[in-house]
Amino acid sequence: MSYFPNIGKVAYEGPKSRNPLAFKQYNPGEVVAGKTMEEHLRFSVAYWHTFTASGADPFGSATMLRPWDRLSGLDLAKARLEAAFEFFEKLGVPYFAFHDRDIAPEGDTLQETNANLDIIVALIKEYMKTSKTKLLWNTVNMFSHPRFVHGAATTCNADVFAYCAAQVKKGLEVGKELDAQNYVFWGGREGYETLLNTDLKLELDNLARFLHMAVDYAQEIGFTAQFLIEPKPKEPTKHQYDFDAANAAAFLSQNGLREYFKMNIEANHATLAGHTFQHELRWSRIHGLLGSVDANQGDVMLGWDTDEFPTDLYETTLAMYEILQNGGLGKGGLNFDAKPRRASFTPEDLFYAHIAGMDSFAKGLKVAAKLVEDGVFEAVIAQRYRSFREGIGVDIVEGRANFHTLENYALRQSVITNESGRQETLKAILNQYLLES
Amino acid sequence: MSYFPNIGKVAYEGPKSRNPLAFKQYNPGEVVAGKTMEEHLRFSVAYWHTFTASGADPFGSATMLRPWDRLSGLDLAKARLEAAFEFFEKLGVPYFAFHDRDIAPEGDTLQETNANLDIIVALIKEYMKTSKTKLLWNTVNMFSHPRFVHGAATTCNADVFAYCAAQVKKGLEVGKELDAQNYVFWGGREGYETLLNTDLKLELDNLARFLHMAVDYAQEIGFTAQFLIEPKPKEPTKHQYDFDAANAAAFLSQNGLREYFKMNIEANHATLAGHTFQHELRWSRIHGLLGSVDANQGDVMLGWDTDEFPTDLYETTLAMYEILQNGGLGKGGLNFDAKPRRASFTPEDLFYAHIAGMDSFAKGLKVAAKLVEDGVFEAVIAQRYRSFREGIGVDIVEGRANFHTLENYALRQSVITNESGRQETLKAILNQYLLES
Amino acid sequence: MSYFPNIGKVAYEGPKSRNPLAFKQYNPGEVVAGKTMEEHLRFSVAYWHTFTASGADPFGSATMLRPWDRLSGLDLAKARLEAAFEFFEKLGVPYFAFHDRDIAPEGDTLQETNANLDIIVALIKEYMKTSKTKLLWNTVNMFSHPRFVHGAATTCNADVFAYCAAQVKKGLEVGKELDAQNYVFWGGREGYETLLNTDLKLELDNLARFLHMAVDYAQEIGFTAQFLIEPKPKEPTKHQYDFDAANAAAFLSQNGLREYFKMNIEANHATLAGHTFQHELRWSRIHGLLGSVDANQGDVMLGWDTDEFPTDLYETTLAMYEILQNGGLGKGGLNFDAKPRRASFTPEDLFYAHIAGMDSFAKGLKVAAKLVEDGVFEAVIAQRYRSFREGIGVDIVEGRANFHTLENYALRQSVITNESGRQETLKAILNQYLLES
Amino acid sequence: MSYFPNIGKVAYEGPKSRNPLAFKQYNPGEVVAGKTMEEHLRFSVAYWHTFTASGADPFGSATMLRPWDRLSGLDLAKARLEAAFEFFEKLGVPYFAFHDRDIAPEGDTLQETNANLDIIVALIKEYMKTSKTKLLWNTVNMFSHPRFVHGAATTCNADVFAYCAAQVKKGLEVGKELDAQNYVFWGGREGYETLLNTDLKLELDNLARFLHMAVDYAQEIGFTAQFLIEPKPKEPTKHQYDFDAANAAAFLSQNGLREYFKMNIEANHATLAGHTFQHELRWSRIHGLLGSVDANQGDVMLGWDTDEFPTDLYETTLAMYEILQNGGLGKGGLNFDAKPRRASFTPEDLFYAHIAGMDSFAKGLKVAAKLVEDGVFEAVIAQRYRSFREGIGVDIVEGRANFHTLENYALRQSVITNESGRQETLKAILNQYLLES
Ligand SMILES: [Co+2]
Ligand SMILES: [Co+2]
Ligand SMILES: [Co+2]
Ligand SMILES: [Co+2]
Ligand SMILES: [Co+2]
Ligand SMILES: [Co+2]
Ligand SMILES: [Co+2]
Ligand SMILES: [Co+2]
Repeated sequence: MSYFPNIGKVAYEGPKSRNPLAFKQYNPGEVVAGKTMEEHLRFSVAYWHTFTASGADPFGSATMLRPWDRLSGLDLAKARLEAAFEFFEKLGVPYFAFHDRDIAPEGDTLQETNANLDIIVALIKEYMKTSKTKLLWNTVNMFSHPRFVHGAATTCNADVFAYCAAQVKKGLEVGKELDAQNYVFWGGREGYETLLNTDLKLELDNLARFLHMAVDYAQEIGFTAQFLIEPKPKEPTKHQYDFDAANAAAFLSQNGLREYFKMNIEANHATLAGHTFQHELRWSRIHGLLGSVDANQGDVMLGWDTDEFPTDLYETTLAMYEILQNGGLGKGGLNFDAKPRRASFTPEDLFYAHIAGMDSFAKGLKVAAKLVEDGVFEAVIAQRYRSFREGIGVDIVEGRANFHTLENYALRQSVITNESGRQETLKAILNQYLLES
Repeated sequence: MSYFPNIGKVAYEGPKSRNPLAFKQYNPGEVVAGKTMEEHLRFSVAYWHTFTASGADPFGSATMLRPWDRLSGLDLAKARLEAAFEFFEKLGVPYFAFHDRDIAPEGDTLQETNANLDIIVALIKEYMKTSKTKLLWNTVNMFSHPRFVHGAATTCNADVFAYCAAQVKKGLEVGKELDAQNYVFWGGREGYETLLNTDLKLELDNLARFLHMAVDYAQEIGFTAQFLIEPKPKEPTKHQYDFDAANAAAFLSQNGLREYFKMNIEANHATLAGHTFQHELRWSRIHGLLGSVDANQGDVMLGWDTDEFPTDLYETTLAMYEILQNGGLGKGGLNFDAKPRRASFTPEDLFYAHIAGMDSFAKGLKVAAKLVEDGVFEAVIAQRYRSFREGIGVDIVEGRANFHTLENYALRQSVITNESGRQETLKAILNQYLLES
Repeated sequence: MSYFPNIGKVAYEGPKSRNPLAFKQYNPGEVVAGKTMEEHLRFSVAYWHTFTASGADPFGSATMLRPWDRLSGLDLAKARLEAAFEFFEKLGVPYFAFHDRDIAPEGDTLQETNANLDIIVALIKEYMKTSKTKLLWNTVNMFSHPRFVHGAATTCNADVFAYCAAQVKKGLEVGKELDAQNYVFWGGREGYETLLNTDLKLELDNLARFLHMAVDYAQEIGFTAQFLIEPKPKEPTKHQYDFDAANAAAFLSQNGLREYFKMNIEANHATLAGHTFQHELRWSRIHGLLGSVDANQGDVMLGWDTDEFPTDLYETTLAMYEILQNGGLGKGGLNFDAKPRRASFTPEDLFYAHIAGMDSFAKGLKVAAKLVEDGVFEAVIAQRYRSFREGIGVDIVEGRANFHTLENYALRQSVITNESGRQETLKAILNQYLLES
Repeated sequence: MSYFPNIGKVAYEGPKSRNPLAFKQYNPGEVVAGKTMEEHLRFSVAYWHTFTASGADPFGSATMLRPWDRLSGLDLAKARLEAAFEFFEKLGVPYFAFHDRDIAPEGDTLQETNANLDIIVALIKEYMKTSKTKLLWNTVNMFSHPRFVHGAATTCNADVFAYCAAQVKKGLEVGKELDAQNYVFWGGREGYETLLNTDLKLELDNLARFLHMAVDYAQEIGFTAQFLIEPKPKEPTKHQYDFDAANAAAFLSQNGLREYFKMNIEANHATLAGHTFQHELRWSRIHGLLGSVDANQGDVMLGWDTDEFPTDLYETTLAMYEILQNGGLGKGGLNFDAKPRRASFTPEDLFYAHIAGMDSFAKGLKVAAKLVEDGVFEAVIAQRYRSFREGIGVDIVEGRANFHTLENYALRQSVITNESGRQETLKAILNQYLLES
């Protein structure tokens, strides 16, 4: 059967098309900067938002109308899966991503839960044989069940820690079975509600122990996916340990884990932490830590994670600029950790929303590629920092300067002259590229 | 002459005193938890807010009425110094702190600037001979002058970098000369205004080079002060590199600098970064990085650094709790990086505001000491994490567990039981201690 | 049967009691400023948080352990009711508050829903015969059901508007039946998600029409409860029409509704709107609009409505200060629109949390009463504004001045002298009163 | 002499031009939606940011390099004026705006200050004879001088109130003399620092008295400019009375002033208040209060008023959409209350920044005009609210419905059906119009 019977394969119709079910910017086979758009963008559908989410919010119940709503248990899980692969194919996305509990229901025992998972994973493997859509990443949900109320790997309860270990062990096995390109750690409950009852050191030490065990087990079973930390400062937990990329990196360095992980940067998590999306991408990039991207956007007037589909072309352009400068995302991709608004509740909205996001990133790619090709910002930066490529600047950069030599130099200087940073001009140029690329 | 002729030595008169020029809580010689209050609290007056600040804000000019206003140049610098030591003595504070440009005016050349500094430093040394007030820390101002418009150690201009090196070199010499207990690095211009024109990697690398040179030079001259980074996320710069303690620690680790620095945690900087003051203190403490404290408070309804005198007893209690758990501040202290409001413009307000802050921290110390003495939170935490002191929990903590053993354990568990976190109860107990200590 | 078998009547044991199930500050019969604490504080239990809430959050499912969990439908509703009156009595609260859907389940039709409501309302009436607890206010839930996805009285769907009218009609009848002192309008879905699809004028006009109908109907049936608007800026809706007290007042004035409504000020809504709790209370008070209070507190580091139990003694003191200056709350009360944290999931936590809140407001009352009795802030204000009680100031206040007379006066002035605002001193005095009252 | 000798008249060169001193979008004479761009946009240069501002920030001193820097007093004022009219002409802007203290220095007495003002106003009048640039609005600076430390019209000091009256009296006379189209009230010090020392009611009453006097005096002298309130929630004052448009409107309604004032909406003030720019424009528009616009943008990651030049094309498009729906701005205009970043310190940056802003609004106008022409959002809204144009909906809108008729209707309804709000689709369409208009 078809779950989206009125919708065919979404095609590229160009920027002037008025067909809401067509791409205006995303043309998968079109070559930009030496690769096809599909290769650059590596889009991924998030199973949880697209096939599982209900539209409930803290003050309201489910609104989403889904053709599989009437089912339950494993039947529901199977129906969602069938719908998912139909959706992937019609949308033409190369990847998807899931948590264990998105794809299969929890049973009465861990054994039963794992058995449910096995059934669905086998089915996914079947679907994958004929589908072009692969698994960008999987992860496990260690935040929804009440057992995680005090944390998962950072719980105060050793039984919960053990449960989490079993759950991630299975998650790694599932990832290997389905050839996941990455495996993600998002610690929604890894943090604290109040320091008054929290042993911060023990919790962080346990988190490190947990991640080392995960690294060890992946090596043991030969699961070579890229491991990703997904920073988020808060929500649901009052204060989360992976507050931002630098907080996560400090933790990894502190605990001998730095070499095993990269970052999965989410736009909305960046802004909740007080950073721009571009900041988190750039920071990760220059530290060799940019692994993958959760492509969404927040609402800067709201203080929670709205996980909106990305439509702001400034954000998509600057994100793609960083990704191009990174030489691409490698094993990572652009995963739409995004949901239609609660009021966009029809199955068609799932297509509309993904098309909006894909077109926005496709346009962003084109603009960014042109910016890189023309060396716009590179030229500005080369000019601006040129003093570090000559004279005393070279001494500094090459390690030959010290406070004595620099003081000598400074005492002989008469007037120091700075040049304008030209921020307004650069923003105007960005607009020009946005409109003209 | 006297700059505060109507004010005598501020004395402790106890909680019921209505004398605005008396301490109600701070009784320097009173012993709390084995040390005098004076030894615990190590209060410091910030030269810039108290003797230099004008009360100007982005929309208004100077309001502060100061007896030394009519002077200028070195005369002004000397008058402020005289007033400062009178103030220190009348308030009875053991420490003060300054930037180079707070104490002496900039000259036409670096030579002249340094000469001005030498004159004042010699004078300070004189005053210190008869004063009980010592130098908690010094630092250099690399943010006010327009030469720092694009950054100091992270400038795009090598000439500015050299100037900064000369300035910090002098700062270290001044610190040694005056026996400063600490030397602080606050990077108000170390960051970026826009990534569009910023070479983030070069700037961070240069910052690391700069700090290594500072470490080397201090060792060379035998200046043994504790080196402190003072994190702040933004303001004046759009995005600052020492965003919070963890960001700063990530940078230090990344660049082989971790062992040479501790943190100077400021309350208002913590909240601007989206953390509580206690979070930044706790995080630094358990990572062995808690060095000193800039004791102030912010206005959580405002988005900038208000640097208010600390009067919130919850904040002072929880800060002192972390400091007691840290075994005290060592070489660090509680520096009032705080200013009377622009509308509190009389010289008397300087006393009132410091008294308010000192009493608030003194009360916080007493409450915290009682909490520690009674083991209130320690008992809760011991009970809450007890599963890590038995059975599988010990295996985890002692490194004997792995995903196999933990999965085995988890598969044999029937039901996981969590216990309430009791946050509301703990807050009620905190109130009780606040009111009854 | 008893739902809280291990808990007896909560008694006042004084500030030094270590009994978590005793009041340390709240002594109902104790007279403060001429009335008993019970009369001043008019505490109310919120049915939704205490008897209905599950502890679910956007990332997690129910955690709350409640003795009535195993039931459903009307049986569940009845059990909750029985538990509620046991809770009210053991806690000794004079009031409670509810939404229609808190107390009775929605049926398949509006008729059935109303019938369910009738059954429970009759039962409540029975309980009230022997209980001392009365109904502070009722309201209707026009936000949880998916029919309200585009708004309730500001929906784009006339059928929904009609449904809401029927629902509020019933709500007013229920209020009259149970002698509610107030009736509350909180517009959780009255706002917009995006202006791109919103007819802002029609929505506001419809809201005014709706409120006029409610006023008319209450008059028709002789329901004399005080009508209250509860402002909130956002959440769940992106932008809510009753953003803050002044926004709500502007709307009421614009639509001829000002005389029929007062404000129900919630602490956490105030801070989400960028105001302090005291600001919203003061603003409402001086405009004759302070009707009632939702007594809770937010977490200023988080961007959503956390509805925590109020424990900050500064907040409770300043709130009670405004309430005392208002001559009390009249028909209004202090309703705990507050929930234990998701991790405080035992039935006992419900008692602990309410005790924490009641003690905090009782202490706040005592401190505020002493501040008022001593005329602390009144004296400061009288002194500060004294120039408006003499000379040109009287001309201004009494309407005899104009730009000509004032210019004449100003041209003759030589120097204008201001006096310090003494904010730091006032905060220190507030601390003294907090600790010594 | 010329102050910008290397810059000629800025010309329109079209979207592909690489000339930083040319317009790419703003073509003054081009007709869009029936009027020229110049007539639609009514651009205005802000005297304070462009000719007076120094680039100082709370942590740094002046950076701006201006050819008139070496002058002082009236000579400086005259030089700035000459530069201003050269700037206006080269940029081709039809309007400018100023505070009294921007254009002429304060003297030792009010008499002298007014005399200074008279000299400059006479000069401006001379320049205007040959210039095409007119005065969009003037206002007075009642925030910079320390006399306003406790407020201006809301001061606690009657002498200050009188001074303000004299100052605004003169301001109205200056406005009349120079044929200002509008007169603006921005109350940067009208608010409070702490409620502990504030008589909120007296301050608000005095503000109303003051505004009535201003209305009366303008009528007396026949000054027919539109009066504008410029809302801002905070900064410099902790809490300002004109928090947002609705707060200001509530105040005006409360005090019989509503008919005399409209709003001057500033983008950055909107976001500081927790609203989008579009919200404040829309709210003002549908309440008949949209008077003029301060065209700038904020930085949503920063908590203060950054007054950046507007370059975000989403913001300019949605602003122009509201303005077109308003039938234009009437006497109002688009005033660039915006400053180049502190690091953009050259005179050329003043041109670059204004060009960036003008091009951004010109593009916004074109996109908005196309959206209006195609009736894009109007069609969506007509369809979405169609139920209010038929059946029960008409009864509601036309005032024939009441709770009885609506309950009857609701009880007869079976199922209520809502339709998707299609937010994602609308954003995708907006992108299409942005790229294709
Ligand atoms: Co994500
Ligand atoms: Co998210
Ligand atoms: Co500081
Ligand atoms: Co600060
Ligand atoms: Co409420
Ligand atoms: Co709330
Ligand atoms: Co403005
Ligand atoms: Co502004």
